[in-house]
Amino acid sequence: MSSTRDIDALIELMAKLPGLGPRSARRAVLHLIRKRALLLSPLADVMQTVAATARECLNCGNVGTADICDICDNNKRANGELCVVEDVADLWAMERSGVFKGRYHVLGGTLSALDAIGPQELRIPRLIDRVQSEEISEVILALNATIDGQTTAHYIADQLEGRVRLTSLAQGVPIGGELDYLDDGTISAAMRARKDI
Amino acid sequence: MSSTRDIDALIELMAKLPGLGPRSARRAVLHLIRKRALLLSPLADVMQTVAATARECLNCGNVGTADICDICDNNKRANGELCVVEDVADLWAMERSGVFKGRYHVLGGTLSALDAIGPQELRIPRLIDRVQSEEISEVILALNATIDGQTTAHYIADQLEGRVRLTSLAQGVPIGGELDYLDDGTISAAMRARKDI
Repeated sequence: MSSTRDIDALIELMAKLPGLGPRSARRAVLHLIRKRALLLSPLADVMQTVAATARECLNCGNVGTADICDICDNNKRANGELCVVEDVADLWAMERSGVFKGRYHVLGGTLSALDAIGPQELRIPRLIDRVQSEEISEVILALNATIDGQTTAHYIADQLEGRVRLTSLAQGVPIGGELDYLDDGTISAAMRARKDI
Repeated sequence: MSSTRDIDALIELMAKLPGLGPRSARRAVLHLIRKRALLLSPLADVMQTVAATARECLNCGNVGTADICDICDNNKRANGELCVVEDVADLWAMERSGVFKGRYHVLGGTLSALDAIGPQELRIPRLIDRVQSEEISEVILALNATIDGQTTAHYIADQLEGRVRLTSLAQGVPIGGELDYLDDGTISAAMRARKDI
């Protein structure tokens, strides 16, 4: 007696991933089964490892495979700059740009009255601790340019005012951006922050 | 010393799935790490199981976890009807419709001169064997309505002509389809096959 129960369970779990629905999960699982030696087995192995070892850095909230993440563990990055981001995806995006050489603090979301997320639900108390205990000279608020992101930035700025230099990312026309496709808010911000050539 | 090597490896493997690119793979992996107890561990476990047990049915080419798949193993489905499909995704689509009660034969692709795929590369010899050795009364060619699919259907029809009743799926307007959005070929086919009400 044979069974496809495991295959169905695999499709069901894959369909829970963001960006995949039942249809694309079926396609992915068929692809995995066709390439079971090259793709499915290695993927299962590395998932087991990550499931066993992945954790959030106790210091900054980044994900890694140890209690303290690579960045917090690297003394070269203790340059006094602390970049505050909403979540790990934002941290990864900053790291890909390669422009920031300091350390991070991952809030784990934004303040939201609707969803009852207050400062205690985020890593804001820990951020204030870090500014006091580590030698931080500048806090860069790299939060998303959304209402919730900016509300959170204002709250943090209020808490830290006077203790440390506070900066935020510049707003303007993105590289490669076409004016015709930009929203009015971005154009206004870029105009107000215009620079001499 | 901590390391994100395993997490990077997981992202790289996930990005190889159809429908996922580097960006959506990163999103999926962050989601998995956040839900590591509820989603990542069960997914890793079921992937291990499927990697160890999944195989193609020796009889029809369907995927399952035994040498003979559920459908070939089920005597109730030996009703003399054999539905020929291109791949397992098509078999699953037929099964979801619930309308077909016979057995399947999965070709594993279509004939293609460009890609040098001849009858020997597909399960066509095995299909001819099955028509002779099993008590097959009707072969339904449920191949895709593409050039390659229809070429393959013609080839199989030539091989089996006179030995068994050969049918193909009806062509016409899909349920819920709007004429304005249908291609000319479908409208022509639906018109030629028009029925009395």
